[in-house]
Amino acid sequence: MNERQPARRPGGRSARVGVAVHQAVTDLISERGYGNFTVGEVAARAGVADSSVYRRWGNLENLLTEVALNRLNTRSPMPDTGSLAGDLRTYAAQVAREITGPDGPAVLHLAVALSGHGEQGVQARDAIRDARARQLESMLDRARERGEDAPDALEVLDHVLAPMYIRVLFGMGPLEAEYVEGLVERLL
Amino acid sequence: MNERQPARRPGGRSARVGVAVHQAVTDLISERGYGNFTVGEVAARAGVADSSVYRRWGNLENLLTEVALNRLNTRSPMPDTGSLAGDLRTYAAQVAREITGPDGPAVLHLAVALSGHGEQGVQARDAIRDARARQLESMLDRARERGEDAPDALEVLDHVLAPMYIRVLFGMGPLEAEYVEGLVERLL
Repeated sequence: MNERQPARRPGGRSARVGVAVHQAVTDLISERGYGNFTVGEVAARAGVADSSVYRRWGNLENLLTEVALNRLNTRSPMPDTGSLAGDLRTYAAQVAREITGPDGPAVLHLAVALSGHGEQGVQARDAIRDARARQLESMLDRARERGEDAPDALEVLDHVLAPMYIRVLFGMGPLEAEYVEGLVERLL
Repeated sequence: MNERQPARRPGGRSARVGVAVHQAVTDLISERGYGNFTVGEVAARAGVADSSVYRRWGNLENLLTEVALNRLNTRSPMPDTGSLAGDLRTYAAQVAREITGPDGPAVLHLAVALSGHGEQGVQARDAIRDARARQLESMLDRARERGEDAPDALEVLDHVLAPMYIRVLFGMGPLEAEYVEGLVERLL
């Protein structure tokens, strides 16, 4: 997503614009929900020109993808505890905490919003999914390299992540630690 | 939801209003997505007075609940095949077909929209969830009465329905018959 721009000086104007635009998107999401605002509104909130946003991100969907991945990677980074069971338990507990927190299952809400945003929305949704899937696969590959018998990433999605997301979406939280650990045990 | 109204003559004016209003809601959902219209717009589309809608359904959320349950009960009725395995396979295949069809995972989109509609939205979401959970439990109870060892409804949600919904939401369809049957086998 950064291919459009020349190399930037860290801490320079470009970095400040990035921070301001990310913050504007985060604020607009919490005020209005995903997809209920425009690039023009993001730019106005961030105090930058519309053209600065279009030049750097191309469209709203790319910007939402970058903000979502930044958030996921910060709040639910893939753990590296030295064992598959430890990694999966830590990851599942992080996801459970995040999606039952004040912002709820944000990536689910974003996926729904992007699904209704035409081809660019679908591409953005797929980019988020693929980036996270690659990270999860790296975690499982590390386990295999240690000689552990790891499930594949889709099984983790189906039987650990999906149940937690659907329960939270339908108001069946909180997700007790015992329940979350049970999902991991069942998979292993 | 029908407590507000007196007994109605089947096929009379009241039934015609019900059909017209349901159709208007269905049309507005497919044009704009869930939650992006008002009671006034539904009434105008259906050719009835706003007050007719408020008198009968109380608010938009109750109306959306009724339309959603009507749709779910028509398109994904709980089967009664005489065996637990048959019921679960049939039900899972129906859900898979429905959520990969032209309207997508509609109940997921509705749950997301209702989650952002305050207390009435949350109540509507919970009403849909509880009505479907009761039906699923009845299906599982029938199996137990036949002496079969049935999972509980939450296990069906977690390990059969949730994976299918999340895969479709993130654009990982189509759901192959082999995959859907595999989810049921794994649970049984």
